[in-house]
Amino acid sequence: MGAPRMFSSTWFYAFDLFGTAVFAIAGALTAGRKGMDLFGVLVVALVTALGGGTLRDMILDHHPVSWIRDDTYILVACLAALGTVLWVRFTRPLPSTWLLVADAFGLAVFTVIGTEVALQHDTPISTAIIMGAMTGVAGGVIRDIICNEIPLIFHKEIYATACLSGAVCLVVLKPFGLPGALDTGLAMLTVLGIRLAAIRWHLALPRFQLLGDR
Amino acid sequence: MGAPRMFSSTWFYAFDLFGTAVFAIAGALTAGRKGMDLFGVLVVALVTALGGGTLRDMILDHHPVSWIRDDTYILVACLAALGTVLWVRFTRPLPSTWLLVADAFGLAVFTVIGTEVALQHDTPISTAIIMGAMTGVAGGVIRDIICNEIPLIFHKEIYATACLSGAVCLVVLKPFGLPGALDTGLAMLTVLGIRLAAIRWHLALPRFQLLGDR
Amino acid sequence: MGAPRMFSSTWFYAFDLFGTAVFAIAGALTAGRKGMDLFGVLVVALVTALGGGTLRDMILDHHPVSWIRDDTYILVACLAALGTVLWVRFTRPLPSTWLLVADAFGLAVFTVIGTEVALQHDTPISTAIIMGAMTGVAGGVIRDIICNEIPLIFHKEIYATACLSGAVCLVVLKPFGLPGALDTGLAMLTVLGIRLAAIRWHLALPRFQLLGDR
Repeated sequence: MGAPRMFSSTWFYAFDLFGTAVFAIAGALTAGRKGMDLFGVLVVALVTALGGGTLRDMILDHHPVSWIRDDTYILVACLAALGTVLWVRFTRPLPSTWLLVADAFGLAVFTVIGTEVALQHDTPISTAIIMGAMTGVAGGVIRDIICNEIPLIFHKEIYATACLSGAVCLVVLKPFGLPGALDTGLAMLTVLGIRLAAIRWHLALPRFQLLGDR
Repeated sequence: MGAPRMFSSTWFYAFDLFGTAVFAIAGALTAGRKGMDLFGVLVVALVTALGGGTLRDMILDHHPVSWIRDDTYILVACLAALGTVLWVRFTRPLPSTWLLVADAFGLAVFTVIGTEVALQHDTPISTAIIMGAMTGVAGGVIRDIICNEIPLIFHKEIYATACLSGAVCLVVLKPFGLPGALDTGLAMLTVLGIRLAAIRWHLALPRFQLLGDR
Repeated sequence: MGAPRMFSSTWFYAFDLFGTAVFAIAGALTAGRKGMDLFGVLVVALVTALGGGTLRDMILDHHPVSWIRDDTYILVACLAALGTVLWVRFTRPLPSTWLLVADAFGLAVFTVIGTEVALQHDTPISTAIIMGAMTGVAGGVIRDIICNEIPLIFHKEIYATACLSGAVCLVVLKPFGLPGALDTGLAMLTVLGIRLAAIRWHLALPRFQLLGDR
C-alpha cells in the first residue's frame, strides 16, 4: 500500500507486500459473498489492497502513488485474489483465525507506513494520526461501499481504534529517536495487540444509537 | 472546508470553521441513525465536513489540502461530533430547525469558497460553478454513500440548486469589482435564501421517474 | 473523459466527446430508474461521463484534469442528460440496442485514452493496462455506487474484460510503431468486438459464489 522511499529497506517492503496480499484476500472473500464474477473479485481485491494508500497519496500530493511505478503491488494483489478463488473453490474455506491475525498484521503495517508518510510531509501530528488510520482502514471501507454494505469497521469489534492507537504511539515515540526501528515496531505491536484482544474477547466501542426523530 | 489563502481574513476563516462544525454535526446525526459506533460517528462526521473541499482540492491539484496543514479543521469537526453524541445521549434531540438553518449557512460558505478556489485556478466559468456546488454538496453525498443510502440531495427539497444559484451569482458579480466582499456576501445570501425558502415551503425539483424498461 | 494533449487530433477529440455524451445518457437513465430529481440526474450523468478520467488523472497526477480547462466536456454531458430526460418524458424509451452499441464505442475510446495517458507517464505495462480499464469502467462503478446498487459490471455480461483486452492489445502493438493510429484503432476494435459479442450471446464470466462461512 505504498511504502515511502525511506522504507525501502527490504524488511519493510516485504511487510508491505504481505499486507497487500492479505488485504487482497479479504477483498476477494467479500466479493465472493456477493456472488461477483472473476473480474469483480479482482477489482474488489485491488481496491481493498491499494485503496487506502492511494487515497492517502492523492490527499497528500505524494506522487507517484506506489503501484504506479512498481507493479509488484498489482501482481501480488492479483495473485492473492486468484489464489483465494482457486483455493476456496477446490479445497475448503480458509481458516478464519489465521486470516484475522494476518489482517491485523497488514493493518499494523499500513497504519505505520501511513503515519510515516504524513509526517514526511510535515503535517501536524493530529493530521498524521488520521492519515495513518485512514491508510489502514480506507481500503476496507471502499470495499464495503462497492459491495453495498455499511462498512464493517463502523459497527463491529474495535478495528480503527487499534489503528489510531498505533499511530498515536508512533507519533509519541518518534521524538525520542529510539535506536533501530524500535518506535515503528512498538507502534505495530500496539495495533496488533489491541486488534487481537478485540477479536479474542469481542471488544466493541459503545454505539451511538439514535432513533426516529433527528 | 478549505478556505484558500485569499480568504485568510479572520471573518471568512471563522465562517469556514462554523460550516465545518455544522456539517460534522449533520454527519454525526446520520451515523447515529445507522447505529454506528463512536469511531464510525467520528469518521462520518469528518467525511461530511471535509469531504467536499478535499475532493475539490484533489481535482484542482490545489495543495496542500486545507486540513493537512491546519489541524484546526479536524479538531473542530471532532469536537462538534463528540458534542453531538453527548448532547443527544444526555439531554434531548437537537432542535431540527436550528440545524437546517445552520446547515444552509454552511452550504453558503462552502459554495462561495469552492467557486473562488476554482476561479483562482483559472477554470472556465461553468467549471467554477460546478466546483462551487460540488464543494457544498460532496461531503453530504459521500456521507450518504457510506451510510448506504441514496444521497438525500438527489430526491429531497431543493438543495444543490441553491448552491448552483449562489455560484452563478458570484461568477456574474465578480467582473463588476464590487467594494468589500459584497459579491461574496450576495452569493451567500442567494444560497441561504433559496435553501431556506425550499425548507419553509417544501419546494422540490420535478423528478425524472423512469419505470421498467430503459 | 480526458484526451491527453497528444490526442488533440480532431478525430480523437470528437470520439472523446461522443463517449462523454453516451456515458452521460447511461447515467441519466440509471438516475431516472431511481426516481431522482433533475439535479440528481445531472450529477449522476456528469459523474458517469467524467468520473473515470478524473480518477485516473488524480492517481497519475496528470493535471489539469481535462474538464477543468475545457468546459466542452461539461456542456456535452449536461446537454446529453437533459436531452435524455426530455426525450424519454415526451416521446418513448430510447432504443436499448443503439444505446448498448454506443456505450461499447464509448468504452473503447475511454480505454484507449486511459492506457495512452498512463503510458505517457512511464508506468509499467501492467499498470497502464489497469489504468486503461479503470478509465473505461470507473465512471459506471461510481454511478452504481451513488445509486446504491452493486456495480453492474461485476456480475453481468463481460464488460471490463473487454477493456482489459483492448488495453493489452494496445500495449502489445505499441512497440511495433504501426503507421497512422493503427494500433489505437485495433485496440478499439478489440474492445468493441468483445463487448458486442458478449451482449449478443450473453457471455458472462464465471461467478465466484461463496456462501455462508468465510
